[in-house]
Amino acid sequence: MRKSIATVSVSGTLTEKLEAVAAAGFDGVEIFENDLLTCPLPPEEIRSRAADLGLTIEMYQPFRDFEAMPELDLRRAERKFQLMERLGAGLLLVCSNVSPRAVDDDDLAAEQLRLLAERAAGHGIRIAYEALAWGRYVNEYLHSWRIVRMADHPNLGVCLDSFHILSRGSDPIGIEAIPGEKIFFLQLADAPLLAMDVLQWSRHYRCFPGQGSFDVAGLLTHVRNAGYTGPLSLEVFNDHFRQADAHRTAVDAMRSLVALEGSAHPAEPPTGFAFAELAAPRDPAGLRDLLTALGFARSGAHGSKPVELWEQGRARLLLNRTGEEAALAAIGLESPEPADAVKRAESLLAPVLPRERAPREAPLDAIAAPDATQIFLCRTAQPYGWREDFTQDGPAAGPAAGGITHLDHVALAQPWHYFDEAELFYRSVLGLTPQESLEFPDPYGLLRSKAMTGPAGGPRMVLNVAQVGAGQAPSQHVALACDDILAIARRLRAERPDLLLPIPGNYYDDLEARHEVDPALRELGVLYDRDEDGEFLHLYTITVGRVFFEVVQRVGGYHGYGAVNAPVRLAVQHAHAH
Amino acid sequence: MRKSIATVSVSGTLTEKLEAVAAAGFDGVEIFENDLLTCPLPPEEIRSRAADLGLTIEMYQPFRDFEAMPELDLRRAERKFQLMERLGAGLLLVCSNVSPRAVDDDDLAAEQLRLLAERAAGHGIRIAYEALAWGRYVNEYLHSWRIVRMADHPNLGVCLDSFHILSRGSDPIGIEAIPGEKIFFLQLADAPLLAMDVLQWSRHYRCFPGQGSFDVAGLLTHVRNAGYTGPLSLEVFNDHFRQADAHRTAVDAMRSLVALEGSAHPAEPPTGFAFAELAAPRDPAGLRDLLTALGFARSGAHGSKPVELWEQGRARLLLNRTGEEAALAAIGLESPEPADAVKRAESLLAPVLPRERAPREAPLDAIAAPDATQIFLCRTAQPYGWREDFTQDGPAAGPAAGGITHLDHVALAQPWHYFDEAELFYRSVLGLTPQESLEFPDPYGLLRSKAMTGPAGGPRMVLNVAQVGAGQAPSQHVALACDDILAIARRLRAERPDLLLPIPGNYYDDLEARHEVDPALRELGVLYDRDEDGEFLHLYTITVGRVFFEVVQRVGGYHGYGAVNAPVRLAVQHAHAH
Repeated sequence: MRKSIATVSVSGTLTEKLEAVAAAGFDGVEIFENDLLTCPLPPEEIRSRAADLGLTIEMYQPFRDFEAMPELDLRRAERKFQLMERLGAGLLLVCSNVSPRAVDDDDLAAEQLRLLAERAAGHGIRIAYEALAWGRYVNEYLHSWRIVRMADHPNLGVCLDSFHILSRGSDPIGIEAIPGEKIFFLQLADAPLLAMDVLQWSRHYRCFPGQGSFDVAGLLTHVRNAGYTGPLSLEVFNDHFRQADAHRTAVDAMRSLVALEGSAHPAEPPTGFAFAELAAPRDPAGLRDLLTALGFARSGAHGSKPVELWEQGRARLLLNRTGEEAALAAIGLESPEPADAVKRAESLLAPVLPRERAPREAPLDAIAAPDATQIFLCRTAQPYGWREDFTQDGPAAGPAAGGITHLDHVALAQPWHYFDEAELFYRSVLGLTPQESLEFPDPYGLLRSKAMTGPAGGPRMVLNVAQVGAGQAPSQHVALACDDILAIARRLRAERPDLLLPIPGNYYDDLEARHEVDPALRELGVLYDRDEDGEFLHLYTITVGRVFFEVVQRVGGYHGYGAVNAPVRLAVQHAHAH
Repeated sequence: MRKSIATVSVSGTLTEKLEAVAAAGFDGVEIFENDLLTCPLPPEEIRSRAADLGLTIEMYQPFRDFEAMPELDLRRAERKFQLMERLGAGLLLVCSNVSPRAVDDDDLAAEQLRLLAERAAGHGIRIAYEALAWGRYVNEYLHSWRIVRMADHPNLGVCLDSFHILSRGSDPIGIEAIPGEKIFFLQLADAPLLAMDVLQWSRHYRCFPGQGSFDVAGLLTHVRNAGYTGPLSLEVFNDHFRQADAHRTAVDAMRSLVALEGSAHPAEPPTGFAFAELAAPRDPAGLRDLLTALGFARSGAHGSKPVELWEQGRARLLLNRTGEEAALAAIGLESPEPADAVKRAESLLAPVLPRERAPREAPLDAIAAPDATQIFLCRTAQPYGWREDFTQDGPAAGPAAGGITHLDHVALAQPWHYFDEAELFYRSVLGLTPQESLEFPDPYGLLRSKAMTGPAGGPRMVLNVAQVGAGQAPSQHVALACDDILAIARRLRAERPDLLLPIPGNYYDDLEARHEVDPALRELGVLYDRDEDGEFLHLYTITVGRVFFEVVQRVGGYHGYGAVNAPVRLAVQHAHAH
């Protein structure tokens, strides 16, 4: 289906907006009135600018407070029709009246809309009537359809907007009662579930489909079943998008439509971690020290690049001695068919990374996530796979008794304002499922955190963002799974206590007030959480550069990440950094 | 009354919080549990740290989900009592149960709280029971009081919290039914009126009294009438304060309590503008050019400083050639009694600025606003007033026909995160009244704006802040009033069209669709608004440095600032800057 977006959805001047949405591959735009009013270009020039960019002007919007008024005012409409002719826009959005002067009279509304449509027809213009969720009398889409049917004019149809329908909890199945040719336009927006005034919710918190909690895909199915053949058009009022880079927002928007439409290249989701790659200084003494203490051994070196392979059990870490500060730079995911996964990523507008490789090295496909993490899609067990690029330095390290067994999860810091984009990326491109969104206090702010998980045994990623303001970026970390954390903690405490993050005694006073726990937790600095399904024990290392490690032991069916203990970890990390 | 604050209300580690609130003059603190758990210091050390700072630990909080449970759990409480003894805290906040396991049984709640209070008594501890607005069964303050009365134990009383009472719309007059000695604690918070989930509202949007929409002062009157003699304690969960400088937040907090208590030094509010002072380059050719074109004439120079006085009618502008970029640096306000105004400012923790002056110069009192604007409090008509420091260069410029008559308003850019602080400052220190809060789109974000006005004829200030993200600071501006804007616009257009901000034709197409207006507006680039009371015509100059001028004409009783046109102005300013 054709893809369109309202200019209000991205940042910038009108011409910057047009350029950004054209670059992201949109076919058309809705021109939002305020963007036109503030534009120094006359409508004719905006028209030719859009045409040069290959963009159709799908609709001009909004025209407010027209129908069901005590007196008919066609003068204002006539001016807008003249403007639309200059602009080359053939469809005008009329949203349901919110004026206190409006009257509750469907016959009057229908009659005035019929007269408007008749006048519009003289200009070759059609009218799409939309029920605003906060319309004074008309606020349900079936009510707007009833009025359109009463008016019975070929130039009058309805505009459906997923936000206005789903925010009120209306059942979208009724859309199938509307003949497809009378649905003149479809606007799509998602939103997080917020118990707040619907007008404020709409004006500030809308997001792209797949970034909120509405079943926009279900609504689209009904619209398709009704026979609608017009464009899918995003109309998103969002305080963050207003400030964000317009090109980036436009790509995010297009990704959401491709995912919604289900037209991305199919691919199986990743089944687990192949490796985590750390950027490292040329002489990564600190990281080597930490890995050795955690029981890792260096098992190989890359044939042509300054990359070391460290292993323990099925946990594999690459140290890429790029000369940068230590940081989590890339993640290798086990993909059943890497080529399909890359095609899927491309169809969802994920940048495929150019790889420099020596002639005899294995092809290794990588894409860039919005947070700049590189995602490698690979099949470790495959013949001639990525492992073959590494010389074998030492014996392949088997899982030591009580040692690290595999990567439990990685935690990625998300740039401010781009949390929703990242979530949609990991969900659509990699097929991960978002879990509950959590918030917890940091001494200097608030952190928002959401886990994204693959199918059972698949990769788990935790996305973190500092919720308010810019300031400090949260560190990245790699969480390592084990079967006996007390043994590991005991060994670390005996050999390298300096590498462990110290946990305040006050934490244990509270923990022991809440639960009967092993006194060894306090002694060893191990944190604890439990839920209905099981227990979670974990510890943290100090931070090296911008990365640290967590060791975790899951007991029973515990599915969380010890979020209840995150404020303690954050406070100690801050204290440690000063 | 003693003044206290919960540690959750300010940013930082526990020790940083204690230092900040002590520095702002608080007498005590409530220790919020999470701040203690994450603190590496043992409770004894926190106790002595507080004592060294002169802070009483008024309360430890919160203790959750205790009462009306199927089984009594005194073990957890016993651990907390031990902790409180180490901490030297004599009062524990128990908030009403939110657990799904709680039962709806006031007798059980009272019995369990009585047992808790009895156990607490053994440690010399008292229990303050608080009804959370979202408590499962107990969520009204009179309900918590009923249970406390049923329990009837000397160590059990109620904790009242203005947020929990006022957010539910409960009438606080019932507080007078509670004997003062059974009100163990009073927590104060304000909040903006938001139609949202009360838990989210409470956790993220609380603010200090006077910064929101609740009648906290009215509630305090009832609490005083009840005979309460304990501290006034602020408990504010606010995403901005979590990130802000702790010392600054603590001062803001203390200012709100002094204003609430009504204990600030009394002073008459300012009656108008004495002058606006612009910081200017050493050779302020651009500004002089602009002022001359607007009809100002240089009428004097300061005796000892590089400051020029420019006048037209009653509009006075000082050009302070500090060598900086042009900016609005200071405002002179006409104060009936400047000395009282300064004493009031001091009692509300406003920094009084040191003034360097020559021996024969007039004393001129100034304070610093939170946005770093200097506020001079003066009486222009006073003998030996500030005017006498200026030599008389030219004739005192009388109001020219059709010229500028006086300063209409000044618009001050507020730093991100500090809007509420600024509003409270201008309201409490200067006695200005906040008007409606407005929001409008900028091409790259959203602007929030609120006018603060003095009594009729008094000064009008507009506070602006970019609502999301850091980015671009909005410019400051000075709005000049006149009686014939078309004459001024015609003269400017003829003589210096380059100094006028050009307004897009699209704006006039829309304006003419909405209203029948004089075609001269389009021709001259004058903007227009109207309301029920009158009309508003205005135009803008280009920006010099970080300041621009607006010329306004008010017709009839129009009270606004043409906010509907602000998006056009902002878009053109951005285009002009690039």
